[in-house]
Amino acid sequence: MNDKDISKVFARTVESLLTDDSNGKMPYCRRHGETMPSGEVLKEVVELVRAVIFPGYFGDSTLSDYTMGYRAGVMIERIYELLCKQIEAGLSFGTTVIDNPSERAVEIALEFVDYLPQLRSALALDVEAAYNGDPAATGFGEIISCYPVVKAMCNYRMAHKLHESGVPLIPRIITELAHCETGIDIHPGAKIGRCFTIDHGTGVVIGETCIIGDNVKIYQGVTLGAKSFPLDADGNPIKGIPRHPILEDNVIVYSNATILGRITIGRNAVIGANIWITESVPEGAWIVKRD
Amino acid sequence: MNDKDISKVFARTVESLLTDDSNGKMPYCRRHGETMPSGEVLKEVVELVRAVIFPGYFGDSTLSDYTMGYRAGVMIERIYELLCKQIEAGLSFGTTVIDNPSERAVEIALEFVDYLPQLRSALALDVEAAYNGDPAATGFGEIISCYPVVKAMCNYRMAHKLHESGVPLIPRIITELAHCETGIDIHPGAKIGRCFTIDHGTGVVIGETCIIGDNVKIYQGVTLGAKSFPLDADGNPIKGIPRHPILEDNVIVYSNATILGRITIGRNAVIGANIWITESVPEGAWIVKRD
Amino acid sequence: MNDKDISKVFARTVESLLTDDSNGKMPYCRRHGETMPSGEVLKEVVELVRAVIFPGYFGDSTLSDYTMGYRAGVMIERIYELLCKQIEAGLSFGTTVIDNPSERAVEIALEFVDYLPQLRSALALDVEAAYNGDPAATGFGEIISCYPVVKAMCNYRMAHKLHESGVPLIPRIITELAHCETGIDIHPGAKIGRCFTIDHGTGVVIGETCIIGDNVKIYQGVTLGAKSFPLDADGNPIKGIPRHPILEDNVIVYSNATILGRITIGRNAVIGANIWITESVPEGAWIVKRD
Amino acid sequence: MNDKDISKVFARTVESLLTDDSNGKMPYCRRHGETMPSGEVLKEVVELVRAVIFPGYFGDSTLSDYTMGYRAGVMIERIYELLCKQIEAGLSFGTTVIDNPSERAVEIALEFVDYLPQLRSALALDVEAAYNGDPAATGFGEIISCYPVVKAMCNYRMAHKLHESGVPLIPRIITELAHCETGIDIHPGAKIGRCFTIDHGTGVVIGETCIIGDNVKIYQGVTLGAKSFPLDADGNPIKGIPRHPILEDNVIVYSNATILGRITIGRNAVIGANIWITESVPEGAWIVKRD
Amino acid sequence: MNDKDISKVFARTVESLLTDDSNGKMPYCRRHGETMPSGEVLKEVVELVRAVIFPGYFGDSTLSDYTMGYRAGVMIERIYELLCKQIEAGLSFGTTVIDNPSERAVEIALEFVDYLPQLRSALALDVEAAYNGDPAATGFGEIISCYPVVKAMCNYRMAHKLHESGVPLIPRIITELAHCETGIDIHPGAKIGRCFTIDHGTGVVIGETCIIGDNVKIYQGVTLGAKSFPLDADGNPIKGIPRHPILEDNVIVYSNATILGRITIGRNAVIGANIWITESVPEGAWIVKRD
Amino acid sequence: MNDKDISKVFARTVESLLTDDSNGKMPYCRRHGETMPSGEVLKEVVELVRAVIFPGYFGDSTLSDYTMGYRAGVMIERIYELLCKQIEAGLSFGTTVIDNPSERAVEIALEFVDYLPQLRSALALDVEAAYNGDPAATGFGEIISCYPVVKAMCNYRMAHKLHESGVPLIPRIITELAHCETGIDIHPGAKIGRCFTIDHGTGVVIGETCIIGDNVKIYQGVTLGAKSFPLDADGNPIKGIPRHPILEDNVIVYSNATILGRITIGRNAVIGANIWITESVPEGAWIVKRD
Repeated sequence: MNDKDISKVFARTVESLLTDDSNGKMPYCRRHGETMPSGEVLKEVVELVRAVIFPGYFGDSTLSDYTMGYRAGVMIERIYELLCKQIEAGLSFGTTVIDNPSERAVEIALEFVDYLPQLRSALALDVEAAYNGDPAATGFGEIISCYPVVKAMCNYRMAHKLHESGVPLIPRIITELAHCETGIDIHPGAKIGRCFTIDHGTGVVIGETCIIGDNVKIYQGVTLGAKSFPLDADGNPIKGIPRHPILEDNVIVYSNATILGRITIGRNAVIGANIWITESVPEGAWIVKRD
Repeated sequence: MNDKDISKVFARTVESLLTDDSNGKMPYCRRHGETMPSGEVLKEVVELVRAVIFPGYFGDSTLSDYTMGYRAGVMIERIYELLCKQIEAGLSFGTTVIDNPSERAVEIALEFVDYLPQLRSALALDVEAAYNGDPAATGFGEIISCYPVVKAMCNYRMAHKLHESGVPLIPRIITELAHCETGIDIHPGAKIGRCFTIDHGTGVVIGETCIIGDNVKIYQGVTLGAKSFPLDADGNPIKGIPRHPILEDNVIVYSNATILGRITIGRNAVIGANIWITESVPEGAWIVKRD
Repeated sequence: MNDKDISKVFARTVESLLTDDSNGKMPYCRRHGETMPSGEVLKEVVELVRAVIFPGYFGDSTLSDYTMGYRAGVMIERIYELLCKQIEAGLSFGTTVIDNPSERAVEIALEFVDYLPQLRSALALDVEAAYNGDPAATGFGEIISCYPVVKAMCNYRMAHKLHESGVPLIPRIITELAHCETGIDIHPGAKIGRCFTIDHGTGVVIGETCIIGDNVKIYQGVTLGAKSFPLDADGNPIKGIPRHPILEDNVIVYSNATILGRITIGRNAVIGANIWITESVPEGAWIVKRD
Repeated sequence: MNDKDISKVFARTVESLLTDDSNGKMPYCRRHGETMPSGEVLKEVVELVRAVIFPGYFGDSTLSDYTMGYRAGVMIERIYELLCKQIEAGLSFGTTVIDNPSERAVEIALEFVDYLPQLRSALALDVEAAYNGDPAATGFGEIISCYPVVKAMCNYRMAHKLHESGVPLIPRIITELAHCETGIDIHPGAKIGRCFTIDHGTGVVIGETCIIGDNVKIYQGVTLGAKSFPLDADGNPIKGIPRHPILEDNVIVYSNATILGRITIGRNAVIGANIWITESVPEGAWIVKRD
Repeated sequence: MNDKDISKVFARTVESLLTDDSNGKMPYCRRHGETMPSGEVLKEVVELVRAVIFPGYFGDSTLSDYTMGYRAGVMIERIYELLCKQIEAGLSFGTTVIDNPSERAVEIALEFVDYLPQLRSALALDVEAAYNGDPAATGFGEIISCYPVVKAMCNYRMAHKLHESGVPLIPRIITELAHCETGIDIHPGAKIGRCFTIDHGTGVVIGETCIIGDNVKIYQGVTLGAKSFPLDADGNPIKGIPRHPILEDNVIVYSNATILGRITIGRNAVIGANIWITESVPEGAWIVKRD
Repeated sequence: MNDKDISKVFARTVESLLTDDSNGKMPYCRRHGETMPSGEVLKEVVELVRAVIFPGYFGDSTLSDYTMGYRAGVMIERIYELLCKQIEAGLSFGTTVIDNPSERAVEIALEFVDYLPQLRSALALDVEAAYNGDPAATGFGEIISCYPVVKAMCNYRMAHKLHESGVPLIPRIITELAHCETGIDIHPGAKIGRCFTIDHGTGVVIGETCIIGDNVKIYQGVTLGAKSFPLDADGNPIKGIPRHPILEDNVIVYSNATILGRITIGRNAVIGANIWITESVPEGAWIVKRD
């Protein structure tokens, strides 16, 4: 194997990659000069948001009270600047053309910054719910430091806000970052109420059209999924139809239960572990395994 | 949107975060001048311990035999110094006041260093158990390089040691780091015997008061959890009550089985995949799925 | 605790680690002067391959069309150089002695580079399959950016190619990197056809001797595992025997189903969620839960 | 000293810095949203140019012949992109308003890229001149690796090109980077011929309006400066008047000589060490110290 | 050469270094647990101070007006924290024992922060002086970006402030950092008035007991040094005696002039290039070279 | 300017650089697969040597006594490994072919490690000399932390050792690194005795064939250079002829003095500042300026 052969293989491979038919199928979808959405950058945004919301727990662990305000200001500025670019990249990514994506991105990013205190309040309630539901937890501090649900809900609530502002793709990347970290996969389109918690969490799936009330608790391995989905005339799945479960207030779903389809689990119902549910469950019911 | 408006939103957000009511609920819990426990730093500690225990597999892959001793010394010093600070942060974190947390932290960190050779022996047995239990494994080297159970058990055994020394929070952060990497969630309070192994591992949950004997093997998705937990007069869960299963020596639990409550799975018993168990199982029993 | 005591503990620990009995059990398996296989380096290789295959989505998100070719060339060179060293490390790692591992490594690395365009075509089909199977997906770009199956299949297809070239260990490290990121655990020895997809994916296990046809789709938590494995005269598992399922073309397996043993799931069969299968299933069958 | 006091000092200092009178005197000179010129970024540009011109000597020392072209392409792209931003920052920095600085920056950056092969030829002659002039030099490779004149001339020739394209500030930052590294301070406005060399170099100063012919050689500590400069009616120095020496072809100036004012040192003249010259010197003269 | 030989050489070298006689001569001078002064950390302090004083020119070149205050706050906090540790290290370094060095360090660091606005005003005047004195300068921005005197004076004025607060060693490290960058070597003990400037600067030396008035300008290579120094009974130089020149207001010293001993250069005097002065010069004199 | 034009300019530039005539003049001089000598790597070697020789002053400023030995061992190993590669690169760089450069490099690197304790003793004497000669110095610690002569002599003595072992190029790169940092340019071929010191140092040049005795002290700007050099028949300078001064024991040379040619400055002689010397000076002479 001499250098010339290596050169030839390299040249052939580069050529072949540049002219590959699949290029048409996997278009970069970017217009001239624009950056693609970047998972790396969004990861930084997520870390900054966590550090702003839970200072000392995330980000720099040495911060002092007397400069908390300066640090928050700097982090907020950075969140704002990174999000402006990423939101614009998201708005320019799809096939629908938006006028002035750059201006719209600035508006949405600023709304997001403005939303941070509400995000903090919502997450504070989630932390409290996790604490109340676990006898092993020794304090709020342990929840924030060690419970994957905090990371998953932080990303989900951030992503849901951006999803509601009409940003494509970026919200999905944000929830997938949490999926990768925690094994909890929540679609940003799902609607989740206050005081929500997930214990352990690995393997949880919450689908796009789920609606979840207040004070709901679920365990590891729970799937809130679609049972099936209608196809259009061409045999392709029809997008956007409600197809995931509704969980009303105070529902508990134990580990590895699977709930499929647009059904309703009534208020205060309890679904036992490893249960398979495809029909609605009335208020207050206890559904448990009998094997 | 002009610069002034942006300035105003930023200032309002910073102000709102600093004066938020949730601050009371999520106290930083640190006394003046002390650092908070840091996941980042503990990650470095974990990497150093792995590199000391399995040199060449973790840490620098280019090390030479003739300076192994120097490298071990430097890594041990670093482990010691980082742990001193983190243990002190853990001891100062909770609400219980400990006299002289800094001095106590030095003692515990030094005990931990002293424990490293025992940790190594324990993990060597776990590696051997993993090798013996998997026909796909080609050698001990493959187990150490590729089996997530090695990472999970290294973190668990480190964390359990610190848990026994009375360090709060830090052990939980350490096992959660492994949960994030491997999908295996072991509470540092669990007691696990020698030659323990987990195959694949994603979704495994081992609760705080579990007791596991020697030569036990479990598969992915297994939950060793609590069935329910008693509430106190105020409706809060009572902390610290034994509520997770006991697995005696040589038990095998196949994938996605769920074992709940303070029950005992007797010596040599085998629990089949996807099984749901809430009552004790006698020695040598085979419990398998019948659907 | 004075400095001298600390010194003593350190010296004792180093000594004890260097002379530990387990050293025999956990040999470094490297010959003089050779580097060990390195997970860190292989992670860089994986990132480079992803960036070459899906430019803009992985790697630098700011790339311009007019220098795509230069970038591909530089990345390919780097992949080649890193792989030469890692493959040589893999070939030198085990107990079987290979003549001229360095020369053989160069050949395999170059074959791998040459294979990149085919890898790209195969992954383009996987992306298309994922898009077609999920009503929540808005475009190919979303699949590539957000669906963990893309990362898992990229690593699997890379690893399988190296496995077929006879490289030990390295392929397993590569698929384990994806397991860590996605919760999807595919053994590099498995054979997987075209247009394969996995939804959500956390908890999926695909064993070493699985054979999977074209257009197969599986969901989170599915295990394609071994039921049991014969022991040799010494009571050790016999390595390399076919012991995992065969899935024929167009099979669908829903979430948390467990399929064990060398059985065959016939063409077009559908296996429902949470199902437990240990016997072959005929073509076109629908096997669903009845509880 | 308590936390409150510290807070107060910090707040007072921030306030005072933001409202300081000197803010008027040291305006940031940037228009909205534009980046300032950055020494850090220009340092990266310089390193890239050196790596393109002298591959293997600067930049990555492990490059292979068979991918030199790819690497050059990637580095050129990066030079181009960084320079676009920096040139725009330079054009927007001063008080003179330029229409469309961004478009003009793209043109100049592209001209600069196009100039790289000429830059290389010019520097190759400078390297040759340095080699021919020093009995201690063992080869061209040593000149490129170890002679500060190579760095100084690379920066000067880059900067002079940009200076001629009318870019403000950026050229000065580039030559100052070399001054910092080498102690050789060449103004980008100076005109320097072919085959120029400087031995040792520390303390050399070459002023803005110098004109230097071909085959000139100077030593450490030489100043080619202004003798005095006329003031305008307000007592301020008049900018831009020719006030530095002209050195014709083949001139040699030995160490620590000082040549001041708009005088001419004729062809083939030799100026001895520590000499002080303020009047023109005829062709072929030898001016040496007589103390 | 085999591994054992290498091991032996290493062990012998380590042993020899640890027991070397020179250890007595080069004591680490640190008391238990304290950090040594660190050039790296002081470099960071210098960079932060420059970024606070000249925002946009040093530090991040992308800063926005609307968060300047937050950024200044964060940088000031960091300066304060780093300086506390470094000043304490300086106070603990020498042989003189100071009570409570940690408390004293906090006071001095806070005084330093409080001094920053004055430092800024002083440097603004130095920038103006540099601009007024150089016909090649196009604006204040160019002075700040490109003139080494700005870096040298920033470090000198910082260091002089700490020197006056009685901090040992740290001030010298700070001015030496500028010496390394600019070739300008100013002792922190020197006293320098307002509106001071140095052109080019390489090779300038300003000794410990110099006193320099307002509006003084010097050029590259100027030495303000000691002529000789009296020895004590043991033949060692007596420390701390005034032995360097005094330059009164408005003095100009041209390049490479050498002024030695405790002499006075009177108001408005001009010293020509390459001049050698060891006796006082009256007000208004012009001393120029006659060769 | 559209993308196509940019593409064309890039392609043209790459092509032109690859086929440039100067390629012949600036050969990379490396044989297949070998790395070039690297300034970056040698910088790391220098930093490690400084940290081994002056622990706490260079390298990590937080080191503890009780693990000094481990750290020294690790640093020595790293020095050894990096030097092996760099020395081999140096031996392979020139045109003279050496058999087995890799083996020879290992020998020289090991000799270098073995030499470290002697290097330390020599530098300890240099530190002492600097302290004795400067009334401004407050202790050995200040000399090591702040005096550029320490860095310059450390690099020179390292480089001289390698020069004596017959390594090409590498020694020059090492002394040039110090030249860049300190403005002191010492050729590695020069011979320098014990207790040598340089005050301030900027602009000092010490040529290749200088011979300097013990207890010599020089100041900033001193040149010990060649007066002229004979040409061979082709008009090229003849390499390697003794052409720089000899300074006998106890000589002092004050700032900016220039001493040229193969002359001898006798024992105890003192050369005043700004003096120009081209003839030998007898023992004990005082040569001072008379203008």
